[in-house]
Amino acid sequence: MNNLLVLQSDFGLVDGAVSAMVGVAKLEAPELDIHHLTHDITPYNIFEASYRLFQTINYWPSDTVFVSVVDPGVGSKRKSVVAKTKNNQYIVTPDNGTLSYIKKHVGIVAVREISEVVNRRKNTEHSYTFHGRDVYAYTGAKLASGHISFEEVGPELSVADIVELPVVETVVGAGFVQGAIDILDVRFGSLWTSITREEFNTLSPEFGQRFEVTIYNGDMLVYQNQITYGKSFADVRIGQPILYINSVYRVGLAINQGSFAKAYNVGVGQQWRIEIKRV
Amino acid sequence: MNNLLVLQSDFGLVDGAVSAMVGVAKLEAPELDIHHLTHDITPYNIFEASYRLFQTINYWPSDTVFVSVVDPGVGSKRKSVVAKTKNNQYIVTPDNGTLSYIKKHVGIVAVREISEVVNRRKNTEHSYTFHGRDVYAYTGAKLASGHISFEEVGPELSVADIVELPVVETVVGAGFVQGAIDILDVRFGSLWTSITREEFNTLSPEFGQRFEVTIYNGDMLVYQNQITYGKSFADVRIGQPILYINSVYRVGLAINQGSFAKAYNVGVGQQWRIEIKRV
Amino acid sequence: MNNLLVLQSDFGLVDGAVSAMVGVAKLEAPELDIHHLTHDITPYNIFEASYRLFQTINYWPSDTVFVSVVDPGVGSKRKSVVAKTKNNQYIVTPDNGTLSYIKKHVGIVAVREISEVVNRRKNTEHSYTFHGRDVYAYTGAKLASGHISFEEVGPELSVADIVELPVVETVVGAGFVQGAIDILDVRFGSLWTSITREEFNTLSPEFGQRFEVTIYNGDMLVYQNQITYGKSFADVRIGQPILYINSVYRVGLAINQGSFAKAYNVGVGQQWRIEIKRV
Repeated sequence: MNNLLVLQSDFGLVDGAVSAMVGVAKLEAPELDIHHLTHDITPYNIFEASYRLFQTINYWPSDTVFVSVVDPGVGSKRKSVVAKTKNNQYIVTPDNGTLSYIKKHVGIVAVREISEVVNRRKNTEHSYTFHGRDVYAYTGAKLASGHISFEEVGPELSVADIVELPVVETVVGAGFVQGAIDILDVRFGSLWTSITREEFNTLSPEFGQRFEVTIYNGDMLVYQNQITYGKSFADVRIGQPILYINSVYRVGLAINQGSFAKAYNVGVGQQWRIEIKRV
Repeated sequence: MNNLLVLQSDFGLVDGAVSAMVGVAKLEAPELDIHHLTHDITPYNIFEASYRLFQTINYWPSDTVFVSVVDPGVGSKRKSVVAKTKNNQYIVTPDNGTLSYIKKHVGIVAVREISEVVNRRKNTEHSYTFHGRDVYAYTGAKLASGHISFEEVGPELSVADIVELPVVETVVGAGFVQGAIDILDVRFGSLWTSITREEFNTLSPEFGQRFEVTIYNGDMLVYQNQITYGKSFADVRIGQPILYINSVYRVGLAINQGSFAKAYNVGVGQQWRIEIKRV
Repeated sequence: MNNLLVLQSDFGLVDGAVSAMVGVAKLEAPELDIHHLTHDITPYNIFEASYRLFQTINYWPSDTVFVSVVDPGVGSKRKSVVAKTKNNQYIVTPDNGTLSYIKKHVGIVAVREISEVVNRRKNTEHSYTFHGRDVYAYTGAKLASGHISFEEVGPELSVADIVELPVVETVVGAGFVQGAIDILDVRFGSLWTSITREEFNTLSPEFGQRFEVTIYNGDMLVYQNQITYGKSFADVRIGQPILYINSVYRVGLAINQGSFAKAYNVGVGQQWRIEIKRV
């Protein structure tokens, strides 16, 4: 193992929760090199947690251990697991859908349930609300430091049984593609769709070409206009919309130095559908 | 010493203040392993700073050095000190009440005043507003790296003279306990009271039992209802309130996947009192 | 090189962008010691990025490599460069004005254009919107780890050709100084002016003395009053304004435990002028 531990949660950085997790990891293994993905996942938003892992995991070395704690079901029967990806990285998380995007787009080769008999901090048996500290950070630290092997996490589960969130499948038709608006590039208000570069390429797009873009919230039409396909924001004037391939190779929609999401009140999630059509 | 340095402040992460502190520490000792508790303490809120230290310190290794800078009195006569805890950890801070919770609930065995003659960065004699950088981070780095010993911090002070914030004592009566609402689990809006697990246990509570909870803001009644005592949030339905023991073994009040603080406009501090009564 | 890499951006910490940059750096060189200046630069605000570098760089060791990505022109013809400062530190950044403050107040001795043939991540040729990850973090990591030398960054450019933002020059007159309000000490709402301690000292100020302070937004008078010059906030009562020398040795304006910026609706930038006059 390489001692790399990356933490993600919906705890925010305003109180001491994240610091307690880091401390627990350092108590287990002072040599750990600890980093943070984000702790600003929208509270309870498992989809977002899943997406942020997918967005970043490929840019980290193999053997890196990720701990992701968005855990609305803490104290319920949901399982605590460690998943091993195709690229030999590990994710420590409640099995509540957080692994969806990784399973679908990266690949999971094995999953084990965390045995709380051996892989839970001692003297925490009266703490029922902070598995992030008592179970996940602790197990992640043991794994990242090599103090336990993946096999020692606990009993193997079936990869097929991993809890998965429903996904919107892309529809590729004659001259159009349809998908969902998965998530925002939050700071800049750009929309990131579920349509991959390969799927979009079935339209044989060329830079500078215009496409008709339609956005629905459920049945309600929210946006419809022609937008230029460009390489990067600077390909259109400031304030102009642009269709582009984003940094995770999916179709994005932005306004150069503006916010597409705010400009047109566009949200994210399964009910937010987008269609891109040749003109 | 173990080279672990943990920083806390009310500076936020929006400008360069925290980074300047980290840089100063790295200039003193490149081998330091620097972490952050939080920098989002409400500006000037010494009580919060004190609580966040208490909330996390037990999860860090012994010999860890904490630097906490919530310093509304910078430039006044308040002292700059280093406290040594019962568990051999160190806190570098203005002596303005920040040590209250640690003194009361963890234990402080010695305290020394920082000698600004030796333990202040050179060439900062015209800088009067940023002791976080020029005194506290600098001294913390020297201590965490072993470049100075605790004794070399400066002259010893009396532990009895440490500035302490007033506290609300829990009242344990026949079938009820009374305390204060100390602080929030900010992201989730849960209330953390000053009532310890042991104090609450005088009511012989059982999971699933209901208790009458009354909250006052000064003399004003803010909330009164019966609430179920559970292990964890999942023990009640989404949207339902729950009484539970939180991760620092005090009584908490939450709404499962909601915000108790927002739902009932509950604040924190000495004037926010809570009573929990057997039904 | 000392393996110190410090990242700054306007990406925020809410999504995975910063973590992807850290991962890319760790993939290049696991031994890197990575820190963050701030990722909360106001989106697209190059001046702020420039100022935050200036505010902190002198507190870091020589050989430290800074990566600053505020890049509204990503995908345009703006150059990607590495600048070497007089104190042997390095800044990896788009050449869009980010280097202004460092060039003027610290000194840049050489600048090189990043050769994207050798110093861009492999297999990112279809990614046009995230040079922070694919070019800047990657090049910064190579440089900080010594995997490439400064000379291997790419061809040398002329320091004289570095893009600079216009600056407001201080006017020193008989009994007055005039400058601009550069930026805020964000959390506390204090104004940081462009007037240096040396320039202010031409008024031979003494602690406790009062000065007439006038603030204009363009032609509009926004504030005019007499303010006490003090060492630190505690020199005036809570709620009172104070004129002081801030932690980067420039004239600041604060309200003790209040926000000067909010109290008088004062903003920042070139059009916000301030005059300080002997009474």
